Amino acid sequence: MVIDEIGRMAAEAAVTEVFGVWFLIGAALVFFMQAGFAMVETGFTRAKNAGNIIMKNLMDFCIGTVVFVLLGFGLMMSENYVFGLFGLPDLQILKDFGGFLAAGRAPSFVFNLVFCATAATIVSGAMAERTRLFSYLIYSAVISLFVYPVEAGWVWNAQGWLAQLGFHDFAGSAAIHSAGGITALIGAMMVGPRIGKYGKGQDGRIQKVNAIPGHSLTLGALGCFILWFGWYGFNGAAAWDSLSLAAIFVTTTIAPAAATCTTMVFTWVKTGKPDVSMCLNASLAGLVAITAGCDAVGALGAVIIGILSGILVVVAVEGIDLKLHVDDPVGAVGVHLVNGVWGTLAVGLFADPAAPAGLRGLLYTGDPGLLGVQALGIAAILLWTAVTMGITFAIIKKTAGLRVTEEEEIKGLDSTEHGLPSAYADFLPAAEHLEGYPEAVPVPGDVPAAEAVPVHQVTALRADGHKYTKVEIICKESRFEALKAAMTEIGITGMTVSHVLGCGVQMGTPEYYRGVRLEANLLPKIQVDIVVSKVPVRSVIETAKKVLYTGHIGDGKIFVYDVENVVKVRTGEEGYDALQDVE
Amino acid sequence: MVIDEIGRMAAEAAVTEVFGVWFLIGAALVFFMQAGFAMVETGFTRAKNAGNIIMKNLMDFCIGTVVFVLLGFGLMMSENYVFGLFGLPDLQILKDFGGFLAAGRAPSFVFNLVFCATAATIVSGAMAERTRLFSYLIYSAVISLFVYPVEAGWVWNAQGWLAQLGFHDFAGSAAIHSAGGITALIGAMMVGPRIGKYGKGQDGRIQKVNAIPGHSLTLGALGCFILWFGWYGFNGAAAWDSLSLAAIFVTTTIAPAAATCTTMVFTWVKTGKPDVSMCLNASLAGLVAITAGCDAVGALGAVIIGILSGILVVVAVEGIDLKLHVDDPVGAVGVHLVNGVWGTLAVGLFADPAAPAGLRGLLYTGDPGLLGVQALGIAAILLWTAVTMGITFAIIKKTAGLRVTEEEEIKGLDSTEHGLPSAYADFLPAAEHLEGYPEAVPVPGDVPAAEAVPVHQVTALRADGHKYTKVEIICKESRFEALKAAMTEIGITGMTVSHVLGCGVQMGTPEYYRGVRLEANLLPKIQVDIVVSKVPVRSVIETAKKVLYTGHIGDGKIFVYDVENVVKVRTGEEGYDALQDVE
Amino acid sequence: MVIDEIGRMAAEAAVTEVFGVWFLIGAALVFFMQAGFAMVETGFTRAKNAGNIIMKNLMDFCIGTVVFVLLGFGLMMSENYVFGLFGLPDLQILKDFGGFLAAGRAPSFVFNLVFCATAATIVSGAMAERTRLFSYLIYSAVISLFVYPVEAGWVWNAQGWLAQLGFHDFAGSAAIHSAGGITALIGAMMVGPRIGKYGKGQDGRIQKVNAIPGHSLTLGALGCFILWFGWYGFNGAAAWDSLSLAAIFVTTTIAPAAATCTTMVFTWVKTGKPDVSMCLNASLAGLVAITAGCDAVGALGAVIIGILSGILVVVAVEGIDLKLHVDDPVGAVGVHLVNGVWGTLAVGLFADPAAPAGLRGLLYTGDPGLLGVQALGIAAILLWTAVTMGITFAIIKKTAGLRVTEEEEIKGLDSTEHGLPSAYADFLPAAEHLEGYPEAVPVPGDVPAAEAVPVHQVTALRADGHKYTKVEIICKESRFEALKAAMTEIGITGMTVSHVLGCGVQMGTPEYYRGVRLEANLLPKIQVDIVVSKVPVRSVIETAKKVLYTGHIGDGKIFVYDVENVVKVRTGEEGYDALQDVE
Repeated sequence: MVIDEIGRMAAEAAVTEVFGVWFLIGAALVFFMQAGFAMVETGFTRAKNAGNIIMKNLMDFCIGTVVFVLLGFGLMMSENYVFGLFGLPDLQILKDFGGFLAAGRAPSFVFNLVFCATAATIVSGAMAERTRLFSYLIYSAVISLFVYPVEAGWVWNAQGWLAQLGFHDFAGSAAIHSAGGITALIGAMMVGPRIGKYGKGQDGRIQKVNAIPGHSLTLGALGCFILWFGWYGFNGAAAWDSLSLAAIFVTTTIAPAAATCTTMVFTWVKTGKPDVSMCLNASLAGLVAITAGCDAVGALGAVIIGILSGILVVVAVEGIDLKLHVDDPVGAVGVHLVNGVWGTLAVGLFADPAAPAGLRGLLYTGDPGLLGVQALGIAAILLWTAVTMGITFAIIKKTAGLRVTEEEEIKGLDSTEHGLPSAYADFLPAAEHLEGYPEAVPVPGDVPAAEAVPVHQVTALRADGHKYTKVEIICKESRFEALKAAMTEIGITGMTVSHVLGCGVQMGTPEYYRGVRLEANLLPKIQVDIVVSKVPVRSVIETAKKVLYTGHIGDGKIFVYDVENVVKVRTGEEGYDALQDVE
Repeated sequence: MVIDEIGRMAAEAAVTEVFGVWFLIGAALVFFMQAGFAMVETGFTRAKNAGNIIMKNLMDFCIGTVVFVLLGFGLMMSENYVFGLFGLPDLQILKDFGGFLAAGRAPSFVFNLVFCATAATIVSGAMAERTRLFSYLIYSAVISLFVYPVEAGWVWNAQGWLAQLGFHDFAGSAAIHSAGGITALIGAMMVGPRIGKYGKGQDGRIQKVNAIPGHSLTLGALGCFILWFGWYGFNGAAAWDSLSLAAIFVTTTIAPAAATCTTMVFTWVKTGKPDVSMCLNASLAGLVAITAGCDAVGALGAVIIGILSGILVVVAVEGIDLKLHVDDPVGAVGVHLVNGVWGTLAVGLFADPAAPAGLRGLLYTGDPGLLGVQALGIAAILLWTAVTMGITFAIIKKTAGLRVTEEEEIKGLDSTEHGLPSAYADFLPAAEHLEGYPEAVPVPGDVPAAEAVPVHQVTALRADGHKYTKVEIICKESRFEALKAAMTEIGITGMTVSHVLGCGVQMGTPEYYRGVRLEANLLPKIQVDIVVSKVPVRSVIETAKKVLYTGHIGDGKIFVYDVENVVKVRTGEEGYDALQDVE
Repeated sequence: MVIDEIGRMAAEAAVTEVFGVWFLIGAALVFFMQAGFAMVETGFTRAKNAGNIIMKNLMDFCIGTVVFVLLGFGLMMSENYVFGLFGLPDLQILKDFGGFLAAGRAPSFVFNLVFCATAATIVSGAMAERTRLFSYLIYSAVISLFVYPVEAGWVWNAQGWLAQLGFHDFAGSAAIHSAGGITALIGAMMVGPRIGKYGKGQDGRIQKVNAIPGHSLTLGALGCFILWFGWYGFNGAAAWDSLSLAAIFVTTTIAPAAATCTTMVFTWVKTGKPDVSMCLNASLAGLVAITAGCDAVGALGAVIIGILSGILVVVAVEGIDLKLHVDDPVGAVGVHLVNGVWGTLAVGLFADPAAPAGLRGLLYTGDPGLLGVQALGIAAILLWTAVTMGITFAIIKKTAGLRVTEEEEIKGLDSTEHGLPSAYADFLPAAEHLEGYPEAVPVPGDVPAAEAVPVHQVTALRADGHKYTKVEIICKESRFEALKAAMTEIGITGMTVSHVLGCGVQMGTPEYYRGVRLEANLLPKIQVDIVVSKVPVRSVIETAKKVLYTGHIGDGKIFVYDVENVVKVRTGEEGYDALQDVE
């Protein structure tokens, strides 16, 4: 018996040491999730904003660290915890580092810091591509300084009122993902949709929802894999023994797998083709949903939670976009808010008394108590976060302003917010960002200077008695959509568009890269070639002039060439007939 | 002595706890290898299939998880193991999670699941860019459901017949890499080469092997680094004490390093330049080869195994492509099959009795017994896998069909299988995928409609008595290669090709991104400019019409312009002479 | 008391086992930093050199491993350590693997190997884009073979003279980062700046510093996140108990966060916009600076060290570029050398006796002793490394040559050193690499053949009495900058530039991809369109001929077209007037 006792002591000592170190390894894995978020959010948005999104992800963590040192950690984890509501900060980490270490507070600091940064970073994706950096940084500081620490303290400080009630959110479906997700929703609503995302009719109501594809599905997918990998630390770090850790790894693997399979089948049936990026979202949705109960449900519970999250994420992402018309470029609300809430409630339903946490879910025991506490807890967290962050965003909007200007948004935030001409300087950009912005390009009403010059053409008729003429228009990329619309109106049915570089003396504010001024006298332009015969050349020229005129340098030029013949391959028609696209 | 005994007990308790947790950390690292495979396979294939490859990698793991829960794990690791051949599944994980945990089966489940997914994912690279998603998913389910679990049970279930014989495959050179590799070989053979990979002569025999470069060497390299990193978990997770773990880390580092150095020198000597992507393959080859014996060979053995794998991978990858004409886009067969077999046999040769496993290799002891067992084991595994997977692929081919249509393959699987126009929406695609597809583009025999229209040209002779004319052809990208060939035939020696966007009313099936319909009325086209004087303009037009005609909308247009002069810079020739490329 | 004693023994046994395994996990994390370096260095340089940079990073590790086995490890960590200066190699790892393991040397081997590879890989970024691969590999072998092992032995071999003096460099601010950084500085100076980086005036002095942006900020950022993640292993692996590990995680998190915030504010104030890539550099700078004292300073010290490193990195990166005119494409010198020195000295200033290391820094104790030792140590390490590596680079420069040819550099090292046409075969390259190379493109003095051919034009005047003519020049990309300069000189104020593919019979040496010959008969060209009326067409043609002529195939062609009209949108001017850019 003495030997047994000694064996038990030895094992306990080992468990303490092992799980102390694993706790920190897990925290490092959670840190690595920042890379995952950065890749997901960058990959699923446009190339012209890549640097800006990365900056937001990076600063989230860095500013979060600073304010968590100053106030957040104390608010959340202080032993002087007031009314079960918040702790009294002490700054011991800065003032008395030895004492801080000796009190065993350092691991908790690191662990809670990386979790806090996760909550903060969820929001950047939903507000991507149009939020001012400065305003975003203020938001980020506020959530890490006090909004997150307060509600997370309720859940994870042993003295927190939700912890006292028996609220169970093992790794943060509620405290992190729902809180981050509701903030993402409020932020996305208050900052408004990206230009071109929703097309309005004459009555000002949204009649058309445009897709704005991301610029690298591959990096987005890499981000998802990194997140899933990091999630073993996220869910597992706080495991207390080998049994609980193994159980957590099982549920953390099964739920996202089930979710992803479900979404694949669901989108396949729904649209005829399995949607890749939605499946990637589904993996994350399954992970979010299993986070609260990863130690409290069994494998079967994990399967069911996963399946439901795989359906929820599709319905939510599409509903938020198509019905609510909230523009969330990366699906953060559908993934984190909806599945965070679902995961929190699921604990109350599926908690298996045989799982390590030993909790009593409704479906296993008939006892609705846990479900009630879970519902109360998630409601309290959502309420607290929505109110505080709603006020925060409202104040920012009134003062600094949430959003960049229309011109900055069209040009891209890399260039306008960071002076970075391109995050991908060696690649030629595609025309994707020209699509869907008609309402953003105002057509000037009167162009007096342009009307004053008479034009005389030397014309040569061809064998069919017609003249064919090519009009070559070199203009700014941002004007293309308006030009296309105007040309369609005057009867132009075909044109050839290419990316060219206009070379001339550069104007405007200089751009810097790593402190060095960039010479960019090759400016990207669009060349539109239109060959006409029936439509008068003069109509094309005058229409183009009206649409393109702003009075600023760089409005573009129009060149007119004689064309000897035209052939339409499909019909074999030549000349005048080849230009009439009647079908 | 009592104190010693107590110390021993304490250490043992610590070892148990530590290696229990490390076992799971290792499993997480193996999961992360999925990201590595995804990046390697995506980076080494074309951009137009990036989403599809990612989907296959993602679903490999997710479907694998589901079927491993349902059947695979029981088949492989059940304690009710029949005749040393397979286990009797019990579904305890779903039915009795508490009992499953208490029996200590959860770590083994997680560990064996991530290994199973590795075996499955090897195949996707070899069959990339032309395999139907649906068919691939069936394959993936079959291998994880029962093909892999059966043979892996032979090796790693203590009651497995190979385990009983003393077959040593510590982390899976045979059970995972050879099994995945032979499946990859069979799959690649049965699905056939990608269009354009092999050029056939008149007699139908392959006369030309074309390289089809991947679209991101950088992501491929990142994948290799991730795989190497994950391999420390792959090889190390099952270490049983600090000594064995350290030994495994040493051999797992040395073998790939030696392999990579060897390949660099080998390709440098062979072709005059060191091949980057082959060196990346070599790192993986060295890792595969050391996997079976990572705990059984010493540093010297690891060096030799690595050097040989560095040569083997080059010979194998090239031989499979150039001699066998099996199209394996990422080199999966050369890396996993060839080096998996080599690594398995190498244990029999280089096992060092002083290494942690304490096995007796032929070269250290003169005892051929282990080598015999290794040869038997690898033969059995290859046979089992080849037969079962051969039947599986044959059935799929007969029923669902293994391969996408020619048109789908040329257009890209992202678009056709997933409705994803591009995984890289913001970048302009290059012309790389236009190369080498002549046999895929049928030229229609007779084009009656095209011949019926007479053409009259107004011509103006230049000072040298010739007229110079530019023919500008706008056509589909997929027709370019045929057009080029036809133009060469009628004597055109030079042309200028550029990517443009044709703008017109869009036809065909709508494409969706995240549930939202995509408007893509800017279609990528090729513009070919040809300036002629000697070759009649009419010849160029008629030839182009014949080659480009299909009768469908989008066949393209031809514009003809007068040219005033032409100068060839190198010779200073102008006019007619400048157009004659006689050299 | 006996029970207490037993408890202590159990805990000790656990600590030994746990930190033994963590030591190796940490080493795996440090290996993963190779992926981080590869991504940072690739992302921050140009696409045309991506494969080459990856190759250098990969081979750094692989060659480093081989030579560290052969000599480096013995030199550094042998117990037969001579005069405190270097160890006597024994090759026990190859000759007596069992004994090597039993002596507990394997973990140290793995750990020191991955650190050695880190020191080596720092240099590749600073010398990127113009260093010959062969020469780089020699450098890499030399540093891993003996330069690093000797100085690192001084610091980390218990018998090393610096270790004996009490020099404190916990994870290598001095031994790794300063050593790698000083080598990077010497290498970058000796290989010289990239073509186009610095523009010289008539007097040969540098008058202009050009920015050469990297090709993927996103991959660069991913690399930074990977490095930060790996750094928890880098700094933490050698922790000796839970307290020290937690303290290290705290400081390793706070310092880079503080550095990044500082740099953001600093660049924002300085240039009006926060610089993304500089902030990413700042994270690394903060990590480098905290490396030496991560176990010796408190959280407050980490904040101050971080803030200063955030300023230092900006000042250093810009100073090295703008003042010293040393071309360091990724900022390796500013990050690793400057902050490595700063971090080493900072231990002497900020070491907090209450931190785990228990060292006495000047600002906490008034005792300048430690600061003196730190200064001595860093000086010795810099001196040793500078002398040995300076000699090494000088010998390489005299023999094999450090640098590729001008033509190879302009074409890109992927193509010329590896026969890899593009690391991104599916994307169209942008014109970025055309900027800033005027001095690299010599204009041939006399072109007799070009002057001999008379030209006759048929002209048609337009309504304003002028003729407008388009001159279309198709030429090599590398000649563009010279062409642009020459055109500006003869009064051309506007041109349109686009990327096209010239199609013709291919000449020159064949290129291989994975052993397969590549057919690349579509060669990238630049098309420059110039429309003139006042400037004689003949001037444009003759000037273009002079600039473009080399006498080699591929010099290009010039086509001349009649233009019917020209319109300048902004002013409404047409014809002759529209072509006069007077403002």
